[in-house]
Amino acid sequence: MNKTKRTPISELGEFGLIDRIAKDIKIRNASTEHGIGDDATVLSYGKKKTIVSTDLLLEGIHFDLVYTPLRHLGYKTAVVNFSDIYAMNAEPKQLLVSIGVSGRFAVEDIDELYAGIKTACEVYGVDLVGGDTSASMTGLTVSATVIGEGEEGKLTYRSGAKPKELICLTGNLGAAYLGLQLLEREKRVFAGNDNVQPQLDGYSYVLGRQLKPEARKDTIQLLKENNIVPTSMIDISDGLSSEVLHICRQSNVGARIYLNKIPIASETFKLAEEMNIDAATAALNGGEDYELLFTLPLSLCEKVKDLGGIDIIGHIEEESKDIYLIAPDGEEIPLKAQGWRL
Amino acid sequence: MNKTKRTPISELGEFGLIDRIAKDIKIRNASTEHGIGDDATVLSYGKKKTIVSTDLLLEGIHFDLVYTPLRHLGYKTAVVNFSDIYAMNAEPKQLLVSIGVSGRFAVEDIDELYAGIKTACEVYGVDLVGGDTSASMTGLTVSATVIGEGEEGKLTYRSGAKPKELICLTGNLGAAYLGLQLLEREKRVFAGNDNVQPQLDGYSYVLGRQLKPEARKDTIQLLKENNIVPTSMIDISDGLSSEVLHICRQSNVGARIYLNKIPIASETFKLAEEMNIDAATAALNGGEDYELLFTLPLSLCEKVKDLGGIDIIGHIEEESKDIYLIAPDGEEIPLKAQGWRL
Repeated sequence: MNKTKRTPISELGEFGLIDRIAKDIKIRNASTEHGIGDDATVLSYGKKKTIVSTDLLLEGIHFDLVYTPLRHLGYKTAVVNFSDIYAMNAEPKQLLVSIGVSGRFAVEDIDELYAGIKTACEVYGVDLVGGDTSASMTGLTVSATVIGEGEEGKLTYRSGAKPKELICLTGNLGAAYLGLQLLEREKRVFAGNDNVQPQLDGYSYVLGRQLKPEARKDTIQLLKENNIVPTSMIDISDGLSSEVLHICRQSNVGARIYLNKIPIASETFKLAEEMNIDAATAALNGGEDYELLFTLPLSLCEKVKDLGGIDIIGHIEEESKDIYLIAPDGEEIPLKAQGWRL
Repeated sequence: MNKTKRTPISELGEFGLIDRIAKDIKIRNASTEHGIGDDATVLSYGKKKTIVSTDLLLEGIHFDLVYTPLRHLGYKTAVVNFSDIYAMNAEPKQLLVSIGVSGRFAVEDIDELYAGIKTACEVYGVDLVGGDTSASMTGLTVSATVIGEGEEGKLTYRSGAKPKELICLTGNLGAAYLGLQLLEREKRVFAGNDNVQPQLDGYSYVLGRQLKPEARKDTIQLLKENNIVPTSMIDISDGLSSEVLHICRQSNVGARIYLNKIPIASETFKLAEEMNIDAATAALNGGEDYELLFTLPLSLCEKVKDLGGIDIIGHIEEESKDIYLIAPDGEEIPLKAQGWRL
């Protein structure tokens, strides 16, 4: 939180706060007809498909403001939602953000949060068009809804994977989870001793993956340029295991994932070793990597390899063959899901 | 909360909970192409305008579960969002609901919440198409986003009011606020004495207005049948004063509201007297009535009177004449806004 100037939110009130949030918003998309400042937002999509996704982020569950700058939180909130639209092979166009804030937040904190949201909108070419602001009893709540546009026949659902198809993955996994573990460790050390500074040097990659993730707009553009439409697609928010299971369950298929094909960055490996965390487990169950997992016909094998930055990590099987992880020694390990649990 | 059977949410986990919520959802609108169960929802609106609105409801701020049954909370959450779409002279078609729940809620509580949401969707012909479920540190958070469809040239913004136009209002005001005051009073009495039963008999109207409000779908249909398109429109969520100010500010006009023309139900008057609350103040600043406030050209005066259920409560003035409430004795009182304040 910004310590230099802190204006109580009570000084502006609800409407003053909305004005402040809305004041420097530029409209970037022709489909945005009527943005912030009415009962609702008006969009205009000719023959395109309208894609919508929403996310709810709660302090203490999804983020810890001890080590998450509000600007980063805003950026991440927006990007995480854009990622859901890219996972449909569509493009995010409009964003609505609602916030609930308790008395410990100042106007400058809200400015920081929205600065991050607005930066993300700029980077990804999305219009911030509405939302809701509210008082809160405890902490910060952020809810975001993103609306995107896609083309008829080119949307990618979780249900389109077929046996023998390739399972493809962008980027690498586990880094966001390791970044979180590092932040949690330094928070614990810090909490016990005021004279200790957090040791975050040399871990900028994993920290960036946790605090300021990016969505794979580049992959969607690359696939489009190469006329490739995945048969199914999902983004890695909960972890690779969960996402593979989602695709298999909705496509009524099985799968084989090869453990040694799962891409893990060297910094992730190094930190995992240092922290006694199994890097493969982080990659499988860590989540928050916002990479894209998708399936393609076997015939596109060479073409997808040539694109660069995309790994083939396994293949789809008949439903009766179930879903297994293949260890380097050939051992077959059943894949399990993990969502949140109370 | 349901006390008969309480299954810990941990028994189902996130994905089990989503399955349970999604299991009996029927799709009602042709524009709903692909609902719950993917990264995002796919909608298909031909030449129509797409209207979107979102709301965030927090326990302790927007609702008190001591006297709000979860089923009613679900119903109200949905209806409040539908109301925003009707206020644009459009029709709600899809709803996304995200929830954050702490450990004190059981699966049956979530069932109750969604039972209310689904009932509202049925009554108003809306499809529940997505959302997000999450754990929460404290209490219940509900975030809803509604998407609607409207016709080109027939949407009603807050910015279209012009001098000399009529200010019209559906239904009556202040009842929802009085209902809330009654519930708060009985909660205080109840808290001090376990042997006292809450005295809610004879106040079913104001309680219903608070706990189970309805949106004015009927008015939107009536206006359509009579080929009337308001020049501006807003729903009464924060209170008449706030809403008049929103319209005036965005239309760059002034207004005169006649205090003795503001419709107040007899039960609202009676309870206000009993509780020493000024009924007019409740009508002006109470909010949550979800009636529609709109403006019409003077030439439609007789036509709107003939429709029934709509009162003309004032008129639009030039901006320079400011915004005043006219008391029965002719005194001019400046109208003031009230949003939430920390």
